[in-house]
Amino acid sequence: MSDPRQRRLVALVDGLTAAHVDGLLVTSLPNIRYLTGFSGSSALLFITPRDVILVSDFRYQTQIAEEVGDFARVTIEPQSLWTGLWQQLGQLSPLDVIGFESAHVLHRDFQRLLEAGGRWQWRPTVDLVETLRERKDAGELALIEAANGIATRALARTLPQVHAHMTELEVAGALEKALRDEGSEGFPFPSIVASGPRSALPHARSTTRRIESGDFLLLDFGAETQGYCADITRTCVVGVAEPEQREIYEVVRVANENAANRVRAGMTGRDADAIARDYIEQRGYGDLFGHSLGHGLGLEVHEAPRLARTADGALAEGAVVTIEPGIYRPGWGGVRIEDDVFLSPTGPKILTTFTHELIELG
Amino acid sequence: MSDPRQRRLVALVDGLTAAHVDGLLVTSLPNIRYLTGFSGSSALLFITPRDVILVSDFRYQTQIAEEVGDFARVTIEPQSLWTGLWQQLGQLSPLDVIGFESAHVLHRDFQRLLEAGGRWQWRPTVDLVETLRERKDAGELALIEAANGIATRALARTLPQVHAHMTELEVAGALEKALRDEGSEGFPFPSIVASGPRSALPHARSTTRRIESGDFLLLDFGAETQGYCADITRTCVVGVAEPEQREIYEVVRVANENAANRVRAGMTGRDADAIARDYIEQRGYGDLFGHSLGHGLGLEVHEAPRLARTADGALAEGAVVTIEPGIYRPGWGGVRIEDDVFLSPTGPKILTTFTHELIELG
Repeated sequence: MSDPRQRRLVALVDGLTAAHVDGLLVTSLPNIRYLTGFSGSSALLFITPRDVILVSDFRYQTQIAEEVGDFARVTIEPQSLWTGLWQQLGQLSPLDVIGFESAHVLHRDFQRLLEAGGRWQWRPTVDLVETLRERKDAGELALIEAANGIATRALARTLPQVHAHMTELEVAGALEKALRDEGSEGFPFPSIVASGPRSALPHARSTTRRIESGDFLLLDFGAETQGYCADITRTCVVGVAEPEQREIYEVVRVANENAANRVRAGMTGRDADAIARDYIEQRGYGDLFGHSLGHGLGLEVHEAPRLARTADGALAEGAVVTIEPGIYRPGWGGVRIEDDVFLSPTGPKILTTFTHELIELG
Repeated sequence: MSDPRQRRLVALVDGLTAAHVDGLLVTSLPNIRYLTGFSGSSALLFITPRDVILVSDFRYQTQIAEEVGDFARVTIEPQSLWTGLWQQLGQLSPLDVIGFESAHVLHRDFQRLLEAGGRWQWRPTVDLVETLRERKDAGELALIEAANGIATRALARTLPQVHAHMTELEVAGALEKALRDEGSEGFPFPSIVASGPRSALPHARSTTRRIESGDFLLLDFGAETQGYCADITRTCVVGVAEPEQREIYEVVRVANENAANRVRAGMTGRDADAIARDYIEQRGYGDLFGHSLGHGLGLEVHEAPRLARTADGALAEGAVVTIEPGIYRPGWGGVRIEDDVFLSPTGPKILTTFTHELIELG
């Protein structure tokens, strides 16, 4: 297989032409990783139809050579990345209009463009690289599948260790150790281990709360391999489930499966969201599903597209999205079931293979 | 003790007056947490001498009530935080000039200020909240000390488990589980577990590399309690250390101790950096210490002040800073020793209590 960076560069250069810019300053680190392979936390990338220039700092001298090779002209700048950028730009053949990423440049740095970069005309661009990233190639899909394998194997190793009286943090520790043992390179977001009434907090983190028998236990966590993420959620009951817990769980389960089986490339994000939302509303729980159905996933755990009531755009073929309906009753508890789904040309392919049955633990 | 948020608000309002703004839009999440107690990932805060307005979304409805109480007027906005902000601002008594955080507002959102917020005059501000955060109060210091306790106890639990043939990721998993078991609420940054030649990469992450006998093993990791961080590094040898490993280790150890014992509030960040750098240069390793000596620490793992060759500012009394000299020989290995130090009125107080002796593991 040819170097995917080469294909991405060609597609991006087409985008530059369409955006009427002579070059693009890329400041988003995931975009830089996508385009060059560099995975560090400090870099500026500059692209023209003829040049690929990457500026980083001392800490990454060895790493950048390994990751980028001769795909880009690499400069290690001892003082400031911006100093290095201005020096490099000054050496290029004359440029007129330069694009920058409006969603990733801070006002402070925008001021730098206008001041130190005052000899060029700066034009805001939106999603030039993100649009490319939305359609995953076979290599990217394989990595997201591998990350899902890490996540589900880690979950399978963790659940038998869980029992009442453990703290949420102890469960998080067991889960994160299993993720590392399975090879996860990182945690794409802070693990949520939320028990009992705290499971009703859609963005709870993990606390010293001790799990009680009869509690819901919601685990929302990620895995990462070569920069690509998985993002999954399962909700269990510690001990024996009450009928009301089973009822709400079942509504969420059906909403998840309906959406995951019926979502299609070409559909709007709103229509995808509605598959799950309409069902939850029919069952009388619409007020308790306050967030959106899902989001794209790849080098970032939240990226394009959105599956939400306010998402007018069509879902791209080749996108990977989360399907994560939930029902949250404040003070009582909540249920969310989340899988990652690839939008193939022929329909959805569910990448998260882990049971949807309600598990009773301990 | 009075509510620290009230003291911070009074100090910030003084800052608004000095900056000639009638109100301040706060978009930095750590700044929002510092001022209101809200720890979620989605919020906008607006402050005037009379008003504290916090806009968040559905996911945080329960959490925000618990964390913020009646300290702010809280709005839960179903569509977009910005929609909620404009509605709230429209209801206030007339405002003329509004400050925003230049280092935290993206160009995209700056455009919103100029367009949807066009009836107000927007003025960039720099570090209004960060300057307050630099001086830790007794409660904050206690939390950073507690986070250091978590980190050092976790390290002490982990090192006896380490042996040759483990992967870096397995060591990271054991360390992170110990951090959770000790109560760490999160990982303020991706744990670095770097072995052998990879210890020469100052910002390595952890990989599937198997540790070999004779390797350096560098662990750089954090702990977090109530949002406050610790950030520490220790470098060990797996097996028996070679004389050259001992020699380089000893240079780093003395550089660390010189700097930690001599750093003072009032000194410039450059002079602090020079304490360690001059010693490493004298010993002939200056070219191999490419990064800066340290950085402030608190609600963020990197905050003001900087201890670096380019840092002209005086270190504030009450700051907590890292002291982290290192020597990195590409292809061979590296050593870093990092402690967190409080700059008290009477001199430095080292918050990280863990041996500096070279530990031989396994």
